Amino acid sequence: MPVSVTVWNEDCAAESAEKVLAVYPQGVLGAVAALYEGRPEFAVRTAWLSQPEAGLTEEVLEDTDVLVWWGHGKHHLVPDEIVTRVQRRVLRGMGLIVLHSGHESKIMQRLMGTQCSLRWHENKDKERIFVIEPSHPIMRGVPAWFELEAEEMYGERFDIPAPDALLGIGWYESGDVFRSACCFERGYGKIFYFQPGHETLRSYYNPNVGLILRNAARWAARDRTLDRTLGSEFAPSLEEKR
Amino acid sequence: MPVSVTVWNEDCAAESAEKVLAVYPQGVLGAVAALYEGRPEFAVRTAWLSQPEAGLTEEVLEDTDVLVWWGHGKHHLVPDEIVTRVQRRVLRGMGLIVLHSGHESKIMQRLMGTQCSLRWHENKDKERIFVIEPSHPIMRGVPAWFELEAEEMYGERFDIPAPDALLGIGWYESGDVFRSACCFERGYGKIFYFQPGHETLRSYYNPNVGLILRNAARWAARDRTLDRTLGSEFAPSLEEKR
Amino acid sequence: MPVSVTVWNEDCAAESAEKVLAVYPQGVLGAVAALYEGRPEFAVRTAWLSQPEAGLTEEVLEDTDVLVWWGHGKHHLVPDEIVTRVQRRVLRGMGLIVLHSGHESKIMQRLMGTQCSLRWHENKDKERIFVIEPSHPIMRGVPAWFELEAEEMYGERFDIPAPDALLGIGWYESGDVFRSACCFERGYGKIFYFQPGHETLRSYYNPNVGLILRNAARWAARDRTLDRTLGSEFAPSLEEKR
Amino acid sequence: MPVSVTVWNEDCAAESAEKVLAVYPQGVLGAVAALYEGRPEFAVRTAWLSQPEAGLTEEVLEDTDVLVWWGHGKHHLVPDEIVTRVQRRVLRGMGLIVLHSGHESKIMQRLMGTQCSLRWHENKDKERIFVIEPSHPIMRGVPAWFELEAEEMYGERFDIPAPDALLGIGWYESGDVFRSACCFERGYGKIFYFQPGHETLRSYYNPNVGLILRNAARWAARDRTLDRTLGSEFAPSLEEKR
Repeated sequence: MPVSVTVWNEDCAAESAEKVLAVYPQGVLGAVAALYEGRPEFAVRTAWLSQPEAGLTEEVLEDTDVLVWWGHGKHHLVPDEIVTRVQRRVLRGMGLIVLHSGHESKIMQRLMGTQCSLRWHENKDKERIFVIEPSHPIMRGVPAWFELEAEEMYGERFDIPAPDALLGIGWYESGDVFRSACCFERGYGKIFYFQPGHETLRSYYNPNVGLILRNAARWAARDRTLDRTLGSEFAPSLEEKR
Repeated sequence: MPVSVTVWNEDCAAESAEKVLAVYPQGVLGAVAALYEGRPEFAVRTAWLSQPEAGLTEEVLEDTDVLVWWGHGKHHLVPDEIVTRVQRRVLRGMGLIVLHSGHESKIMQRLMGTQCSLRWHENKDKERIFVIEPSHPIMRGVPAWFELEAEEMYGERFDIPAPDALLGIGWYESGDVFRSACCFERGYGKIFYFQPGHETLRSYYNPNVGLILRNAARWAARDRTLDRTLGSEFAPSLEEKR
Repeated sequence: MPVSVTVWNEDCAAESAEKVLAVYPQGVLGAVAALYEGRPEFAVRTAWLSQPEAGLTEEVLEDTDVLVWWGHGKHHLVPDEIVTRVQRRVLRGMGLIVLHSGHESKIMQRLMGTQCSLRWHENKDKERIFVIEPSHPIMRGVPAWFELEAEEMYGERFDIPAPDALLGIGWYESGDVFRSACCFERGYGKIFYFQPGHETLRSYYNPNVGLILRNAARWAARDRTLDRTLGSEFAPSLEEKR
Repeated sequence: MPVSVTVWNEDCAAESAEKVLAVYPQGVLGAVAALYEGRPEFAVRTAWLSQPEAGLTEEVLEDTDVLVWWGHGKHHLVPDEIVTRVQRRVLRGMGLIVLHSGHESKIMQRLMGTQCSLRWHENKDKERIFVIEPSHPIMRGVPAWFELEAEEMYGERFDIPAPDALLGIGWYESGDVFRSACCFERGYGKIFYFQPGHETLRSYYNPNVGLILRNAARWAARDRTLDRTLGSEFAPSLEEKR
C-alpha cells in the first residue's frame, strides 16, 4: 500500500511570486510534490493555505501518512485551530516533514515547545551537508557529504530541543554551521526537519535532497496499526492489593 | 547569592480542601515551599492562581531563578497569556520544576509539545523509586532506591518526548512502572518533572523527595550571565565572499 | 532478499543441561533460532562456542546481517580475538541482538564501554513489560504491555550508557524495575538488548517475545549498500586555501 | 575542597619535540597543566607515559577527581592494564577529559566502544567553534562562537556514539565541520571530548579554550560521596512472594 503524502505550502503555483516561478514553474509546492509523484510507493496530494480550512480538513489528514510543510512569510495566517488539528494528528501518529523556513512555523513551534529561531542571511552561499548518521534509514544511499551550490544561510544556535537523532550538519562558505537534518519523535508521530529549500534557489532539483525527502517520508509514515487516545485515562490495578 | 525560588500552586492554603489541609496544614503550596524555606541558599516566594496575573507578573518572573509548579483540577483556568509568559521565561533561561499532576498543565504541554497524558488510579499504592543516573546532580545524596508509603499511581505510557536525561523509574505495587524523574532542556531553560505529590498523601514529608527537589532547584537555576532574544536574527557573513 | 540471521549460543543442544532441555528440547540455541526459521524473510544459521573460531569465522560474519547472542556462564571462554572480530563487524554495520544474560558478555561490554552489571535474583518472578515507544519499528504489533509468567529478576541500576532509544521497562512482582528493551547505535551498527530469556523458564515461547525479536532483526539488519573503513583517514581540503 | 586534576601526556617537557617546545616551552603537558595551576579551586598534578605505570598508579588515580588526557603518536605504547585501570576508575566516577588527538587513544575507544576515527589534515586552517548548548555548565561564560586562528582539521564522520550532550560544532575554512565538544556519561563517570590542541599550534593559549577546560573539570569532577562496585550482585526480593 502506498504511503499517502500530503504536500502543503502557503502558496499554490498561481499565488507564487514571479521570482519563485522563474526557478520552480509550479511553485515550491509543485517542486516538492514532484519529488514524490509518479512513484508507486507514494500517493501524493497537494494542499495550500488559501483553500478552505487551509486545505487540511479532518478528511485530508485522516488519509495522510506524512504531511510535508513549507511556509515562510505567512506563518501567522495559518489559523490556530488548524495548527491544533495538525498537532493532534502528529501526536496520534501522522508523520511530519518540515522544510527550510518552516522552522519558525506555528506547527514546528508547537511540537518543539521552543521558538525554533536561528541566525540567517541570504547571500547564495554554498552549503555542504555532512551525513552524521550514515546508517539511519533517512540517509540510505546518500554520500558522506554533498553540496548545494547556493542556499540561504541558517546558522546556530538553532533553538530546538536536542534532536532524538542528528543526521546532518551543514557547512556554509560564509562561515557558519547548522544542524541541517534532525529527527524528533512526539507522541506517536515522527518529525523530520530539513534545512534546504529557499524559494528562489534550486535545492529541490538536487538529487540528494530528493532522495532524503523520499527516505524521510518512508521513515515518518504513520503506522496504521497504531491508534491512540490523547488524554489521560483511569487504569484499574494490574495486581490485586495485598 | 541565593537561588530565587517561586513556588506556585493553583490553591493557596485558604483555598485548599479540608482533606488536603488534614495532611498539609499550609496546603500543598506551603508544604512545597517549606522544602526550601529557612535555608540561606534559597530565597523563597509563593504565588497562586487567584492572585492578579495568577501571581506571575513580569516582575516576579524577572526575579525568579526557578519556578516550581503544582496544579491539578484548575489547569484550564490558568490564562493562556500567563502560560505564554512563563514559557518565554523558560526559553530565556528560567528553571521550571513540574510536580505530580502538573504533568498535564498547560505549561508542561506547551514546553513538551505533547499531551503529557498517562494512565492513573488512586489507591494509595506503595511506590518505590529507583535512581537510574546516580551521578546526576539532582540525585546527589539519594540512595539507590527509596519508598513512598502511598502514592497515586501514574503509569506508562507517559506521553512525553524522550527525556534529555531519565533519572528515576517508579515501581508500583499495583503492577505499573513510570518514568518518575525526568530532565528536559528547552531554549536556555532546564525543566525537571517529578512524579510524587498527591495532595492527600504524605510524599512531601519524605526526606528523599525534599532532597531531590532542592537539588533540582540548584540544577535548574537560571544562569544570570546568559541572556537571549527569542526571535531569528539577521547575521552578517562571518567570512568574506570569495 | 532475506535477512541473514546468525543465532549464537555458548551451548549447542547436545551441550545443554538437562534442566534446560526439559524446557527447550533444542536448547536455548534452538529455541531462539526457531523464532526465525521457516519464514522466507529470514535465512537462519546457528553457531556456538565449541565450534572452530567459536562458530564465528570471517566467512560466517561476512554473510551475517544480524547476529543474535545468548551467553551466560561461559562469557570468559569466548576468545578475545573473536570478540574483536565481532565488534569490528558491528562497527562496519552488522546488527547485534543481545539476549538476557548476554548483558555481561564481552561483546556487550566492549560495545558499551561499561560493565553492564545489574542486580538479580532467580525466583520465577512475574515480569510485566511496558512499551515505552509504541511507534518504534521493534514494537510494531506489540500491545501496551505484556506479561511473562516467570523470569529471572534483573534490576536497576543497569550499568549501560543511556540508550539511544528506551523501548521497554519491566516491572517485577518482587519489587524491582528494569530497562528491559534498549537500542544502541555504534559505528554503522545497530544493537538491541532484550531482557527475557532465562534458560529454564519459558519466555521464548511467548508470542510477544518472538514478535519483538523478529522486528528487532529487521530493524538491526545491516544495510549492505554501506561499507566503511574503521581507521582515521587523510582528507584533502574541500575548499581552496584563501 | 579543590578539584584534584591529573594532567596526563604521552610526553613530558623533556621528551617533547623541538617544534612543540617552540610553541609550548613546557610541552603540551605543561601548557594544559597551566590552565589549572595557580587557582585555589584546582589541585594539579602531571603524569606521563615514561613514568612507572605510565604515571597512573592506583594511588594517583585514587586521588584524582578528573584526568585530562592528551596523546597522539604513542597510543599503542600505553599498557593495556593501565587502560583497564583508568576505565574502571571512570566507571566508578572519575571524570575524564580527552583532548584533540586523544580521540583515537585506547581509553577513548574503550569507553566509547567505537573506533573514534575521523577525517583529518594539517593545514593550519581557521576553526570557528559554535556553542550549541549555551546553558550547559561547560559553556558558561563562552560567547556564541569563537575562533582559533589555526588548527588541525578534524572532519566528520566522527565515529562516536551519539553524545549525551553535543555542546559545540566546529567550522573549518577548508570546508569541513566537526562535533568539537561532546559530553558522554559512562558508569558513574563523566567524559568530555574537546577537539582543539594540535601540538604545534597555539590553541591552548586561547582564553575560551582555557575557560571551557576549567568548566569541564568542574563538571566532570568525581562526586566523592558516591562509590560503587562494578560487578553484578545478588539482590534479595524487595517484596514478599505472594
